[in-house]
Amino acid sequence: MASADSPRVRVFAPATVSNLGPGFDVLGLALHRPGDVVEAELSDRPGGELAGVTGDGGALPLGTGRNAASVAADEVLRRVTGAGRPPGLRLWLHKGMPLASGLGSSGASAAAGAVAANEALGRPLGPEALVECAMAGERASCGAAHADNVAPAIVGGIVLIRSCDPLELVRLPVPDGLFIAVVHPHCEVSTATARARLAGRAFALPDIVANAGNLGALVAALHQGDLALLGRSIDDRIVEPLRAAMIPSSTEVRSAARDAGALGCGISGSGPSMFALCDSDDAAARVALAMRQVFRDRASLGSEAWVGPVNRDGAHVLP
Amino acid sequence: MASADSPRVRVFAPATVSNLGPGFDVLGLALHRPGDVVEAELSDRPGGELAGVTGDGGALPLGTGRNAASVAADEVLRRVTGAGRPPGLRLWLHKGMPLASGLGSSGASAAAGAVAANEALGRPLGPEALVECAMAGERASCGAAHADNVAPAIVGGIVLIRSCDPLELVRLPVPDGLFIAVVHPHCEVSTATARARLAGRAFALPDIVANAGNLGALVAALHQGDLALLGRSIDDRIVEPLRAAMIPSSTEVRSAARDAGALGCGISGSGPSMFALCDSDDAAARVALAMRQVFRDRASLGSEAWVGPVNRDGAHVLP
Repeated sequence: MASADSPRVRVFAPATVSNLGPGFDVLGLALHRPGDVVEAELSDRPGGELAGVTGDGGALPLGTGRNAASVAADEVLRRVTGAGRPPGLRLWLHKGMPLASGLGSSGASAAAGAVAANEALGRPLGPEALVECAMAGERASCGAAHADNVAPAIVGGIVLIRSCDPLELVRLPVPDGLFIAVVHPHCEVSTATARARLAGRAFALPDIVANAGNLGALVAALHQGDLALLGRSIDDRIVEPLRAAMIPSSTEVRSAARDAGALGCGISGSGPSMFALCDSDDAAARVALAMRQVFRDRASLGSEAWVGPVNRDGAHVLP
Repeated sequence: MASADSPRVRVFAPATVSNLGPGFDVLGLALHRPGDVVEAELSDRPGGELAGVTGDGGALPLGTGRNAASVAADEVLRRVTGAGRPPGLRLWLHKGMPLASGLGSSGASAAAGAVAANEALGRPLGPEALVECAMAGERASCGAAHADNVAPAIVGGIVLIRSCDPLELVRLPVPDGLFIAVVHPHCEVSTATARARLAGRAFALPDIVANAGNLGALVAALHQGDLALLGRSIDDRIVEPLRAAMIPSSTEVRSAARDAGALGCGISGSGPSMFALCDSDDAAARVALAMRQVFRDRASLGSEAWVGPVNRDGAHVLP
């Protein structure tokens, strides 16, 4: 059954905005663009073999045990290996998004790797199991097996991680009329470094209470379709204050986004990308422009932007 | 216009369960019973005068500036005093619930005081302003102006406090089929002492993340009518671990509640009362019995219990 010349499957998994203000490690949403593509085919050689990486400028490890895509695919194989199963997979990763951008780059690779492996094997696993496999890829890549990027990258939409162990996802409604602007300034913040800043820290109860109020309001706003409430809820007193200092002019970017009509604005994941929620495609385009302008004028940083609605579908097979 | 012989209004405000697991200071729900009654009538003497208190066993301060009901009424007067307004109110507080029980005793008094004052004055204030007035009563009574008891006591249902300053309430849906058992063991935990235990403490990120996941899931569960998810979300890693030790056998009570069929169980407010969420009136009655039995057998504590659905209406005028 295993065959080196079985057809290749190609899977796209999108970038994601995690945290969304008060939801550190528990909230994420999927974008339509950018994203990664993983190709996979069955192989007689046991395990997952990363045969090639493009689009990363040579930055990513090719070693199968350290690349998010192949670790995730390996984990899929590990779970389904048994009588009649092919022993191995050969994988190609095509990075279509910047590394260390705060847009879930390793998460997109891990998600695409897990879903591509699952497709090549005939879809033995369901979405929650695939998220667990992709979490193994995240752990290999950045040291922490968080699900707030890989879950929305795989299932799409806006996802709450109630619990990582055992994994429990809660899919939240995506209000009509919600659009997102994401701006990636050309400076790097490594997820591992950003997370190391948080290690061992303790947080005060008033800030925890403020975050809880905003997180609860955010989840209510999504269900009630209340975009103004959603925007007011994008406020984090726990993690963002520590991370804002790592991103040049981030405070001014946030002000500019709000002045340009954003409902709310914050740091995407561990940054340096920032996101803004808007109530129309036009507003999101205007807001992205205003944010880029501040990065350019205040911090002399080039940037790129993506604008659009939430990706409700997540990872999918390409023709 | 002000007259010492104007008709008295009588207002009932209910007990409340605050925190609800992961929602310290941001979540509360209203019960049908027990609760407090405040009578109010216009008076020519300026300010709010507490003319009498019954049902407290002599424990409550009669001084107008220290009683939650009269401070709240005073705050209503302060906000509406102006041309043609009567200068004062005379108030009577009838405690219908235990003090220092964790069921929002001072909150019920403050809520009843604010609403009764508002009624006597011809309803000049809306619900959010009344919650702010009642918060002043909470501050006088326990030192902290939290809204998670007075908000549900006034507006009813299940309420999220997004922010205290400025006050912003988010009313959450009450799923059909949700019933609550509340058990008050006969020991005292003062809110001020319980809050003092938390003062200056700092909390670790993994516990904050776990609470955020549960709080988000709880709000989603209320909107989605998912009682099982609601029950799983009743878990607090921040405050309850510190408070559980103040309540004899609280861990065993929680286990007994779950064994008897509760969806979830936790400490009500700062305790010692404990609450359990259930999916039927019968289940709630059974669960209350099991909880009382543990308090009696393990901790030699008498107790009383209340069982029923959420009070969707909150404070109301009595005939």
